[in-house]
Amino acid sequence: MNAPQKQDGFQVVGTRPVRPDGVDKVTGKALYGTDFKAPGMLQGAVLRSPHPHARIRAIDTRKAEALPGVKAVVTGRDFPSLQSLIMAVGESASDIVHVARNCLALDKVLYEGHAVAAVAATSPEIAREAAALIEVDYEVLPHVLGLEEALADDAPLLHDDVFTKGVSPRPDKPSNASMRVEMGKGDVDAALAGAAVVVSGRYTMEPVHQGYIEPHACVASWNADGQAQIWCSSQGHFAIRSLTASTLGIPQADIRVTPLEIGGGFGGKTTVYLEPVAMLLSRKAGRPVRLAMSREDVFRASGPAPGAVIDVRIGADADGMLVAAEVDFKYHSGAYPAITAHSGVSSAVGHYRIANTRLIGWEVLCNRPATKAYRAPGAPQVNFAVESAIDEIAGKLGMDPLELRLKNAVAPGDPQTSGVPFGMIGWIECLEAARAHPHWSAPLGPNQGRGVAGGYWGNYGGPSTASVSLGEDGSVLVTTGSPDIGGSRAAMAIMAAEVLEVPYEKVRCTIADTASIGFSMVTGGSRVTFATGKAVVDAANMVKDTLRERAARMWGVAAADVEWRDGAAHCTGGDKAGESMAIGTIAARAIFAGGPVSAEAAINAAGWLPGFGVHICDTEVDAETGQVRVVRYTAIQDVGRAIHPDYVEGQMQGGAVQGIGWALNETYIYNAQGKLDNPGFLDYRMPVASDVPMIDTVMVEVPNPDHPFGVKGVGEVPIVPPLAAVANAVARATGVRMHDLPLSPDRVYAALHPEG
Amino acid sequence: MNAPQKQDGFQVVGTRPVRPDGVDKVTGKALYGTDFKAPGMLQGAVLRSPHPHARIRAIDTRKAEALPGVKAVVTGRDFPSLQSLIMAVGESASDIVHVARNCLALDKVLYEGHAVAAVAATSPEIAREAAALIEVDYEVLPHVLGLEEALADDAPLLHDDVFTKGVSPRPDKPSNASMRVEMGKGDVDAALAGAAVVVSGRYTMEPVHQGYIEPHACVASWNADGQAQIWCSSQGHFAIRSLTASTLGIPQADIRVTPLEIGGGFGGKTTVYLEPVAMLLSRKAGRPVRLAMSREDVFRASGPAPGAVIDVRIGADADGMLVAAEVDFKYHSGAYPAITAHSGVSSAVGHYRIANTRLIGWEVLCNRPATKAYRAPGAPQVNFAVESAIDEIAGKLGMDPLELRLKNAVAPGDPQTSGVPFGMIGWIECLEAARAHPHWSAPLGPNQGRGVAGGYWGNYGGPSTASVSLGEDGSVLVTTGSPDIGGSRAAMAIMAAEVLEVPYEKVRCTIADTASIGFSMVTGGSRVTFATGKAVVDAANMVKDTLRERAARMWGVAAADVEWRDGAAHCTGGDKAGESMAIGTIAARAIFAGGPVSAEAAINAAGWLPGFGVHICDTEVDAETGQVRVVRYTAIQDVGRAIHPDYVEGQMQGGAVQGIGWALNETYIYNAQGKLDNPGFLDYRMPVASDVPMIDTVMVEVPNPDHPFGVKGVGEVPIVPPLAAVANAVARATGVRMHDLPLSPDRVYAALHPEG
Repeated sequence: MNAPQKQDGFQVVGTRPVRPDGVDKVTGKALYGTDFKAPGMLQGAVLRSPHPHARIRAIDTRKAEALPGVKAVVTGRDFPSLQSLIMAVGESASDIVHVARNCLALDKVLYEGHAVAAVAATSPEIAREAAALIEVDYEVLPHVLGLEEALADDAPLLHDDVFTKGVSPRPDKPSNASMRVEMGKGDVDAALAGAAVVVSGRYTMEPVHQGYIEPHACVASWNADGQAQIWCSSQGHFAIRSLTASTLGIPQADIRVTPLEIGGGFGGKTTVYLEPVAMLLSRKAGRPVRLAMSREDVFRASGPAPGAVIDVRIGADADGMLVAAEVDFKYHSGAYPAITAHSGVSSAVGHYRIANTRLIGWEVLCNRPATKAYRAPGAPQVNFAVESAIDEIAGKLGMDPLELRLKNAVAPGDPQTSGVPFGMIGWIECLEAARAHPHWSAPLGPNQGRGVAGGYWGNYGGPSTASVSLGEDGSVLVTTGSPDIGGSRAAMAIMAAEVLEVPYEKVRCTIADTASIGFSMVTGGSRVTFATGKAVVDAANMVKDTLRERAARMWGVAAADVEWRDGAAHCTGGDKAGESMAIGTIAARAIFAGGPVSAEAAINAAGWLPGFGVHICDTEVDAETGQVRVVRYTAIQDVGRAIHPDYVEGQMQGGAVQGIGWALNETYIYNAQGKLDNPGFLDYRMPVASDVPMIDTVMVEVPNPDHPFGVKGVGEVPIVPPLAAVANAVARATGVRMHDLPLSPDRVYAALHPEG
Repeated sequence: MNAPQKQDGFQVVGTRPVRPDGVDKVTGKALYGTDFKAPGMLQGAVLRSPHPHARIRAIDTRKAEALPGVKAVVTGRDFPSLQSLIMAVGESASDIVHVARNCLALDKVLYEGHAVAAVAATSPEIAREAAALIEVDYEVLPHVLGLEEALADDAPLLHDDVFTKGVSPRPDKPSNASMRVEMGKGDVDAALAGAAVVVSGRYTMEPVHQGYIEPHACVASWNADGQAQIWCSSQGHFAIRSLTASTLGIPQADIRVTPLEIGGGFGGKTTVYLEPVAMLLSRKAGRPVRLAMSREDVFRASGPAPGAVIDVRIGADADGMLVAAEVDFKYHSGAYPAITAHSGVSSAVGHYRIANTRLIGWEVLCNRPATKAYRAPGAPQVNFAVESAIDEIAGKLGMDPLELRLKNAVAPGDPQTSGVPFGMIGWIECLEAARAHPHWSAPLGPNQGRGVAGGYWGNYGGPSTASVSLGEDGSVLVTTGSPDIGGSRAAMAIMAAEVLEVPYEKVRCTIADTASIGFSMVTGGSRVTFATGKAVVDAANMVKDTLRERAARMWGVAAADVEWRDGAAHCTGGDKAGESMAIGTIAARAIFAGGPVSAEAAINAAGWLPGFGVHICDTEVDAETGQVRVVRYTAIQDVGRAIHPDYVEGQMQGGAVQGIGWALNETYIYNAQGKLDNPGFLDYRMPVASDVPMIDTVMVEVPNPDHPFGVKGVGEVPIVPPLAAVANAVARATGVRMHDLPLSPDRVYAALHPEG
């Protein structure tokens, strides 16, 4: 169904037009999650647990219900029971019930900020007052936050029905270790014993938050006939539909989810916190209900990226060939089981040819919010440890760190960690681009050091639906179900314009609600430009074929005698040869000559390829204060083909800055009582514009042969290398190798002044 | 692409489930045109002409603009010039410019209530105050309201660039007769000369309004980058998009029109009055702008059905065979050219076999609002005259009026007025059902009379797009672009459920915006259940094929070995023979095994058939007051196949009641100054529940072989016969034949007491 790939000569692909949603967003007209208002809408408030771990003995909602203006109060008991969920959704009920319990606790609260009850009232003030009137009788339990502490035999157990997955035979008692993943090959111990150089170390970090600018918010309206509407911002309104329907045990078709604009997600907006609760409140109140998180709610009760404890041993021979790697890491799963360990294991050392590997990852339950995806989920943590160790090896061998990486880099055809061979990846091209980049050879100033790190992410394709329709005047309308986070409306419009050979300005792209377009997976996994893009290209090609057929019919010639070029049909045979008909002319007549011109493609896109990046970072360290300043930064990445280069570069810059924040400042700080001490942007320090230099970008284009324009995913790769790139730069600037993130001034100062 | 038509044994078609939008509507949650609010929205007001005909010498908007809170003022000069419209839309510019001028007058106002300027302000009060501050310098011109007066040589001319269409050679001077249509055959004069009985008469009526319960309202938001959104209720959001884009000379793709629920249209909501004006105000103000009509605005400045002057001569032989018919009618076109005369001519006598006919229709410009479609546009007026005359013939011959009609009724294969033969029509079946109905032979009380009349409407098909998608749980989502006025969501869901053999409750139907689904023509012409229904059936059949293929793939058998039955795939061959898989199971797996299950059909539906109806009406006339009371009413109609019988019966009842109102009470009353004297429901008397008996309905089902379930259009036919049915009943009750509608008490009294 795809057109043959054009090798060059693109007309629109690769240009940088203004994004279609730009004016709407900069003028404040765009509707975000918190902007939507439904007629008769009530305001909701959520009561959250002050304890990190406690049994709920009873909840008394009578005072709240008696407060004038209160229209509904709900607790975890308003969700369907596990038994009824098993009836409704089958074997996935045990996962679904965790989603529901995270929305509203049932028997136990598992972290500070865990939602316990919710209120809908005629004003936000009344709702908050009513929430405060709800009396919860807690039996406070001992809590556990640390990874190793949670795995101790005497650790407080979070769930008595979670048994470690990935262990055979199935354990006979429940555990805080919710999952173990192991992969590898060869004989690591023997290889390390024979290695010329072996480095080992333990690397740690606490969870960090995605830090999206827009807190979660939604409006839900659930009618007496069972039909519901939800308006919210998310990375995937189909996921919101499916999770809300599953947790409530109702058919998906009864819920119509309308996507609003999204102020960032980075993986953290692929699940539900508020939507099912707003639904329950709406059903009780008989009116639409709005729920919105505060920034503090977001920090305390949405899903950060896991912290980690990572043990690494890597050995190389005297020529710098890596011979063995052992990586054993534990990731925070938080209050409910997560699955990040899988991708941590897959991506730990997959970018190098190493004959002997042992890779083990653990997911660990503890009294923290349930962790969620954050750009290349699970990869940056383990990459930080591995790329730090690689840097140490280069140091010990006196080798250029880029040379060491080039020597060991995987190439197309080499096996991935899973054993499946890599396709047309561009890792070596990135390393060579780094070596050739002026940054790599630029002189450094005093107290400065230059770090480099490489990394990758597998990317994804998967299911997407797109349709392309023509207006009666030949306007081109592209419709998808993929929320536009990083400029994908522009990318979709560019691809459709390229196929139909019309100007970009003739194409408009809309993100339709769940009732108006077929299923698409979330905007995540760097999949949209690849997978939804493929669907758009397929649909545009179908439209092009239809236009040729309609033109042929109007001319009375065979479709084979009609060529499509420059947005017009050209007759090449019969007595109309030489005539042409523009898209607008065909569109106007076609409606009554065959019907409206419209095509839909619903695909499960295969053929995605991993993306690789190399980041070069110069830091300057102030030994007096321990402050680390990034003074120059270059991100190099194989992007396959940049459809709209601005947004590809923007992804690379954004990922790099988030990685710099992770490396230098960001961290969750819990106190001894298990309460978060820094749930706001004043105390949780994300980089702002003045903290970072202009991030220089180099787009390496090794096209993906399985995408009509060569696209590879680009959004996640750039957060993988920065942690080690920054740490390696600090190590080079100071001579001190630090293993614990963030490299905050107090820690750097302490490392530089070990005497204290 | 269609499945073979099932001859019987329907599972869902013909049942009467609750409509999907019912609860939303009765609980007040549904969003109608006037309910939508955009953030930052301004309120608009329109200044309207107090004169029926005047030249605009100047408009001074300075005082309005200076009023605090006023953000924009626009006049007709803000529309693109005719010259730029010709550049933008080509040859249709002359029609488009009339639409634009009707939205905002340019050089002349053509009727009382013609919009002259509009204001957007921070409150409706300020907007109205500002509108009143606009100073218009009018040169009042003589006006003309009547049909014959407007055709007089010395009549005031409305347009100096309108020449009578349909007259050859093209007239050399402009005229208030905007169109003449003539059809016919044979030698009418000779046939009438030889006829045993000839009746002739002149029949008249003034315009009547559709009387939809919801006045026009919209919100428009036009960004600085040219992109716009419109939220409004209409019979077709694609028509709103195209008319707004054309009048403003911008690409259709720059406008996204979101349909809101519609409180009735009946043909009157297929055009734009407010949307282009709200757009202009929004562009000037830089904010969304709301415009809404009052009921008085609706009466004065939206499009009523034309009034008429109709001259009829019909002759029959002694056996009651009709030998000739001459019909010459004039319809109000109002301020701008209309096209109702075409269908008036086509449907005048097409239900009878008459060898000699001369049918002439005129459209006449006059200083009234531009007339628009109203259910079977153009047919009820002429049918009133013809069916009254037929009744007179029956009386003169002493024949049963049903027998006379049966004797002359057209059958499948007989030529229509156009010459094209009728398909599988059910006119004779309706007449026979009427004859057999207990109503026809029931005894009458004192002062009562029974009238009968028959009539038909051609119906339509045309372009529609529909998609059918599955949720991951097997829920079925039907999406169309056809606003649901009379229950079409339910009809679409029923048809999809029938094809997929799933319960009705599993299917939900959504009306998507213009950016989320391909083009569909307006909800009008009784086309939706036929044409959009055909598209839904096509798409559902594609989904069924996909489900069979996916199941076959999962089983590893050929698609031919999989049967679809009872909402599940059944394996009939290979080693999985006997296994089955329900739609939900296939849907859940299919997303990752081939992609989301979704299909779209974009068709120009052919094969529609005319619908015929026979109405029996009993009236009781109070000779003391002239009041006519309808005491019993039966509507019999060939509906092809009733998909959801409740809504078919509802259409028949609603059409009959509107026709009764037209016959007895409704009428526009202009005073000598050319101003409307009854622009409100207190003075414009529409029937309410207590005015009419329960309308009995008989659905005759002669299936349409060109629709998979046999559908014929049903919405328009039932307004055709009531005018004559009521008048014939009054004639039988009183012995006096009245020729002028409405048969209001004063007129009936005068007719019964000619001595005065």
